[in-house]
Amino acid sequence: MPARILLVHFDPEPYRRLIAAAFPELELVVSDEAGAEAALPDADAVIAMGRWLNRDNVSRSPRLKWIQGLLAGTDHLTPLLEARPDIVLTSGRGAHGPQMAETVVLHMFAFYRRVPQLVRAQAESRWDRFIPRVLDGRTATILGMGAIAEHLAGVLKAFGMRVVGVTRTPRPVAGFDRVYPREELIAAVGEADFLVSLLPLSPETRRLVGADVFRAMRADAVFINVSRGGVVDEAALIAALREGRIAGAGLDVFEERVLPAGSPLWTMPNVFITPHIGGRSDRYAEGAMKVLLPNIGAFLRGDHAAMLNRVN
Amino acid sequence: MPARILLVHFDPEPYRRLIAAAFPELELVVSDEAGAEAALPDADAVIAMGRWLNRDNVSRSPRLKWIQGLLAGTDHLTPLLEARPDIVLTSGRGAHGPQMAETVVLHMFAFYRRVPQLVRAQAESRWDRFIPRVLDGRTATILGMGAIAEHLAGVLKAFGMRVVGVTRTPRPVAGFDRVYPREELIAAVGEADFLVSLLPLSPETRRLVGADVFRAMRADAVFINVSRGGVVDEAALIAALREGRIAGAGLDVFEERVLPAGSPLWTMPNVFITPHIGGRSDRYAEGAMKVLLPNIGAFLRGDHAAMLNRVN
Repeated sequence: MPARILLVHFDPEPYRRLIAAAFPELELVVSDEAGAEAALPDADAVIAMGRWLNRDNVSRSPRLKWIQGLLAGTDHLTPLLEARPDIVLTSGRGAHGPQMAETVVLHMFAFYRRVPQLVRAQAESRWDRFIPRVLDGRTATILGMGAIAEHLAGVLKAFGMRVVGVTRTPRPVAGFDRVYPREELIAAVGEADFLVSLLPLSPETRRLVGADVFRAMRADAVFINVSRGGVVDEAALIAALREGRIAGAGLDVFEERVLPAGSPLWTMPNVFITPHIGGRSDRYAEGAMKVLLPNIGAFLRGDHAAMLNRVN
Repeated sequence: MPARILLVHFDPEPYRRLIAAAFPELELVVSDEAGAEAALPDADAVIAMGRWLNRDNVSRSPRLKWIQGLLAGTDHLTPLLEARPDIVLTSGRGAHGPQMAETVVLHMFAFYRRVPQLVRAQAESRWDRFIPRVLDGRTATILGMGAIAEHLAGVLKAFGMRVVGVTRTPRPVAGFDRVYPREELIAAVGEADFLVSLLPLSPETRRLVGADVFRAMRADAVFINVSRGGVVDEAALIAALREGRIAGAGLDVFEERVLPAGSPLWTMPNVFITPHIGGRSDRYAEGAMKVLLPNIGAFLRGDHAAMLNRVN
C-alpha cells in the first residue's frame, strides 16, 4: 500500500502541483480545514498549518506517523506529542525568512518614513514634505536568532544597519555584529534603535518582553513584534507607549489572535498595526518546498532521521 | 589669505560641525539660501544644493573657483559652466544610496504589501487580513547604473530579487544579474516586476520613459520613479495607468517639482505618492562627508585633479 499523505490548506493547489511534480507516485489527498478531521484516520502523514489538530483527532488516527507543520512555530502542535509520542513532528522553519524580513522593514519604514502621514497626505492631494529618518547607521536588536533572524540580519546589513542578536545559545551567526545571551536581555536592548521580536512562544519566553525591557529601551526606540503576541506583556507595552517611554510599536501579532476592535492599540498614534501577515506570502508554497520535498522523500524512504526541522 | 568656503543650507549646523572638526583652520561662512547670493562674491568655493545659483550671480563672483553640489544630480548646475568654465563643479554623488534604496523599497511595499489599505484598516480599527506579494524571487529592472543603483541592487539582492540594469555603458556591476545597453530598453523592461528609474536628467533621458516603455511592460508590473520627473512622459504614464496597461506607479518626482493639487495622479488608486523625499535623510550631513571632506582637503591643497565627482 503506497503512503497516503493528507494536505490541508485553504488554497492547496500550488502545493499539490509542486508536490505531485516531484512525487508523481504519491497518493496525495487534498482537503480544506473543514474536511480535514474526517480524512485524518486514513492518512499516514499530514501536511498542514494544523490549528485544527488536537489530542482527540490524532489519538483516533493510529495510522498517522508524521505531522509536517507549515508554520515556523510549533507551539500549537507540540502538545499533541504528549498523546502520541510516536508521531514525528517537523516544522515549516526555513520558508518564512523573506516575507518576515519584508514585514519587519515595512514596520521600520512606518515610523522612519512616516507611512500613515504619507497615505493621509495623498488622500488629501497634499504635498507634505519632510526629512525621513534612515535605517542606515542605526542599530536593530533582534530577539531570537533562528533561520528568520538570520535572513532578516542579511537584509538589515544591506540597509547599512548594525545588527545585535539576543539568544539562549550565543554563537557567531552571519550578519550579526554582536550577540548577547538571553540573561543579558536588559543590557542588550539599551543600544537598540529598533527592538525586533522573533521569539518563538514557549514557557520561557511568555511575556519575556515586559515592563523592565521597555524601561531599558531608549525613548526614541521602536519595538516591533512579528513572532507571537504571547511573548509580550501587552499591558506593559500599552503603558510604555502611553507614557512615551518608547517612541512606538509596530505590531503584527497580539495577545489575542485577532486584535479586538476595542483595543487601545488600534488608535494610538505611535502604533502601526498589520493584521498578522508577517509569515504570509503569495509564494508561500514555493518557499515551503525547501522543507516539504526533502521531508516527503525521507518519509517515503522510511528515513525519519534525515527529515529537516524535526521537533521531537 | 586662507580659503573662504561658503556653506549654504537650510539646516547648516551638522555640516558646519563635521567640517570644522576636520578642518579647524578653514574659514567657513554659513548662510541660508536667502543670504547666499550676498555672500557669494567673497567666497573661494561654495557648498550648496544650489538652486539659487545662476549665471548672473556666479559671473559677479570672480573669486569663486569651486562649486560643490550637495545633490547627486547636477542638471541645475551644469548651465553655470557655460558662463564660468573655469569653475570646478563637483556633485554630491555617493551620499544618496541608503535613503534612495529605502525609498524604492517603500514604494515596492506600497503595492505588494498594500500599504494604503493597511493604514485605512487601522484608522477604522478593522482587522483586514490578506496575503502579501513578496519581493523574493521577483525581478527589478533599474534604469541607470550609477552609485545609487549599485547600492539599491545590494539591498534588492538581500531581499532575494533578481536585478537587471539598463545603462549607456554596459559593464559588469556587483549586484546586477544582467545588464542591457540603453538601446535595448524596450527588451529589458518586459521581464520586470518593477521598473525603477534612477536616470539622471539630460537631453538624452528627457521623456525616455514613454508610451513605448509602458506598452512593453507586463500588465502586473509597477513603475517606480525616484530620480527626476523629466525622464518620464507623464501624460503617457497617466494613460497607461488609466488603461490598466501597467499595475501601478510609485512616484517621488513629477514633471512639475511640486505635484499640483489638481493632478490626476493624486487620486488614482494604483498610484503611490511620496513628496520628493527620496534623497532626503536625517543623516544627510554624515553621508555627504564621504565626498565633502576629501574634496575640501584637495581644494585647500590646490589639487583639483584629486577631487571626487568632478563634473567638468
